[in-house]
Amino acid sequence: MRKSQQQKPLLRVLAGEVLPVAPWWLMRQAGRYLPEYRQLRGRAGDFVAFCLDPALAAEATMQPLRRYGMDAAILFSDILMVPYALGQKLCFVEGEGPVLEPVDSAEGLSRLERDAFLFRLEGVFEAARRVASDLGPKQALIGFAGAPWTVAVYMVEGGASHDFRRVKIWAYRDPAGFAALVELLQEATIAFLCGQIEAGVEAVQLFDSWAGILSEAAFVRWVIEPTARIVAVLKARYPHVPIIGFPRGAGALYERYVSLTGVDAIGCDTALPVSYARESLQRLVPVQGNLDPVMLLAGEEAFREAVWRLWRILGKGPYIFNLGHGVLPETPPHAIASLAALL
Amino acid sequence: MRKSQQQKPLLRVLAGEVLPVAPWWLMRQAGRYLPEYRQLRGRAGDFVAFCLDPALAAEATMQPLRRYGMDAAILFSDILMVPYALGQKLCFVEGEGPVLEPVDSAEGLSRLERDAFLFRLEGVFEAARRVASDLGPKQALIGFAGAPWTVAVYMVEGGASHDFRRVKIWAYRDPAGFAALVELLQEATIAFLCGQIEAGVEAVQLFDSWAGILSEAAFVRWVIEPTARIVAVLKARYPHVPIIGFPRGAGALYERYVSLTGVDAIGCDTALPVSYARESLQRLVPVQGNLDPVMLLAGEEAFREAVWRLWRILGKGPYIFNLGHGVLPETPPHAIASLAALL
Repeated sequence: MRKSQQQKPLLRVLAGEVLPVAPWWLMRQAGRYLPEYRQLRGRAGDFVAFCLDPALAAEATMQPLRRYGMDAAILFSDILMVPYALGQKLCFVEGEGPVLEPVDSAEGLSRLERDAFLFRLEGVFEAARRVASDLGPKQALIGFAGAPWTVAVYMVEGGASHDFRRVKIWAYRDPAGFAALVELLQEATIAFLCGQIEAGVEAVQLFDSWAGILSEAAFVRWVIEPTARIVAVLKARYPHVPIIGFPRGAGALYERYVSLTGVDAIGCDTALPVSYARESLQRLVPVQGNLDPVMLLAGEEAFREAVWRLWRILGKGPYIFNLGHGVLPETPPHAIASLAALL
Repeated sequence: MRKSQQQKPLLRVLAGEVLPVAPWWLMRQAGRYLPEYRQLRGRAGDFVAFCLDPALAAEATMQPLRRYGMDAAILFSDILMVPYALGQKLCFVEGEGPVLEPVDSAEGLSRLERDAFLFRLEGVFEAARRVASDLGPKQALIGFAGAPWTVAVYMVEGGASHDFRRVKIWAYRDPAGFAALVELLQEATIAFLCGQIEAGVEAVQLFDSWAGILSEAAFVRWVIEPTARIVAVLKARYPHVPIIGFPRGAGALYERYVSLTGVDAIGCDTALPVSYARESLQRLVPVQGNLDPVMLLAGEEAFREAVWRLWRILGKGPYIFNLGHGVLPETPPHAIASLAALL
C-alpha cells in the first residue's frame, strides 16, 4: 500500500509519516474497566471460551471504539491463546491470573500438540474478520501475539512469577532444551500472526512483557533472536504489514532491540525515558507510548501536563500515543474520555 | 584516607583503583539460604526485634564471611527500619513480606514521630560497632538504607505492590504533599546513615529497589533529587565514606542517575547491559554487579561463563563483583562456595 493511498492515521505513522495530531489507542483498551465489557464477560463463564467466541471477542474489541473513537482496534484476546492452542492446560482464576500446567522439560515439550494449533484459534481469526468489516474507514485493526520469551515464561512457570526462577534455571542450565521450546513458540507465533493477517489485521504488536528481567546475554538470545526471526518471516510474506515491538522493561537495550530485530515501530514502556525514545529510537522507527496508566487514576489535572510533554517531545517525529502499560481495571471510564479530548 | 594507606580491596576500588582481582560481596549475603542463619533467626520471634538485637544482627552479618570470606560485610538489617523508627506500625508476615499501616496523606504523615528516631535505631548502631571490631584487616563494613522513593513505596502501599497505584496516585495528584513525606525520609536517611558511619561503617549503599517503575519526569523528581541531597550532605560531613547507589531497574536512566546524584559508585541490576555499564557508567565511577542470582541455582557450569564474562568486560576498570539482586533463599550454600573459588 503506497503512503499516498493510505488514509488511516495509525498506518500512516507506522509508515513513517509525521502527523499534526497523534493517532492513538491504548493497551488493554477493551476490558474490565468498561461496564459494558463486564456485562458481556458475564455471558461466557470461561475466559478462554470468551476469547475464542467470535461474536463476544469482536464485540469486546469494538466497545472502546464506540465510546472513545480510538484510531485503532486491537483484537480482544490473550497472549496465552498460543499455549492453549498447543494443548497446554490453561485456566484463568478470578483475581489471580492464569494458571497453566507447567512445561519445564523436553518431556513436557513433547506432550504439546502442534496439529490442531490453527484450528483451535479459528475463533480469533473469525473475530478479526468481523471487526475488520465493522471498523470505520480511518480506523485500523491491530493483531497481536506474545513474544516467545514472554509466552515461555508463563508456560514454564505455570503462571505469574516473582523471581522467574523456574524458566531461568531451565534456560541457564539447558539452553539447547529451552531453545526447542522457544523455537516452537517462534513458529507458532508466526503461524498465529499470519492467520490474523489473512483475516484482516493491518498491523501486529509483539508483546514481550518480561523482556526486562534478563541479563544482556540472555536478552540477545531469548528476546532479540526469536523476535528477529519472526519479523524476517512476516516481512517476507507480508511486507506491507507493520510490526510493533514492545519489549517491556528493556531499558538501555531498547535501541539494540530496534536495530537488531527489524521491527517497524517500537512501543515504549512507562519507565523508558521520553528523551531516550526521542534521541535513540525515533531516529530509527516510529515510537508509541508511554503515559503511566496510573495517571488515568490520578485525574485530568495530573495527566494533562504529562500528555502535553509527550506530544511536545515525541510529536516532532512519527508518533502514536499510547500508555506505557495496559489500562488498569480501576480506571474510571470518564478519565479516558478526558484523555481523548486532549489528543 | 589516602589511597596508598588503604589496604581494604573494596575501599580501594571504591576510590577508583583497578585491582587484579575483583573484591566481592553479595546483596543479601546474610540470610535465609544459610542454615546457621535460620537457626539464629529462630531465637527472636519478631523480625524487627531480630534486626534491632545487636548480638543477633552482628552474628547474622558475620556468618557469610566466616563461610566464604567476602571482602565486605553488609550490616544485617532491613530498609524498613526507617519507617519503624518513625513510628509506623510494621510487621513481617512469614512468606508474605512486610505489612505496614499505610501512610498516604498529610494526616498520616503528621502521626509519624521524629523524636525517638535515632534512639529506636540504637541496636543497629551497636551491631555496627560490634561487627567493625570483628572484621579482618582486609574486610570492609558496608552500611545501608533504602532510598526515600523506595521506602515511601512501602510506607504508602503498606507492603509489596503489583501496580504501585496508591503511591503513584499520591505523587501525581498531590506532589507537594508527597514531597513532604520524601523530604522527611531524606532527612531520616541522612541521620540513619550518619549514625551508622559514626558506629564504624566504611561505605554505604542506597537501595532504590523501585526506581524502575517511574516515568522519566517522576524519576528525576523522586529518585534523583532526594538521592542527590543525601549524597551532598553525607559528602560534606564524611568526605571519605564512599556512597554506592543502586537504582534497580533504572535502565537507560542509570547514566543520568550517576551524573546527577554524585554517588561514588554504582550498583548494576541484573538487567542492566554489561556493555552499557562498561561504556556509559565505568568512565564515571566504579561499578558493582550484576550476576543474575538465579544463576546460583542453575549450577556452576551455568554461572562460570557468566562470571568470566563480567570480569572480562568490567575488570578493565574499577569493579566490585556482586549479584544483580539479592541472594535467593533457595540458593544452595555450596554454590556460593563455588562462586568464591572462581573469584
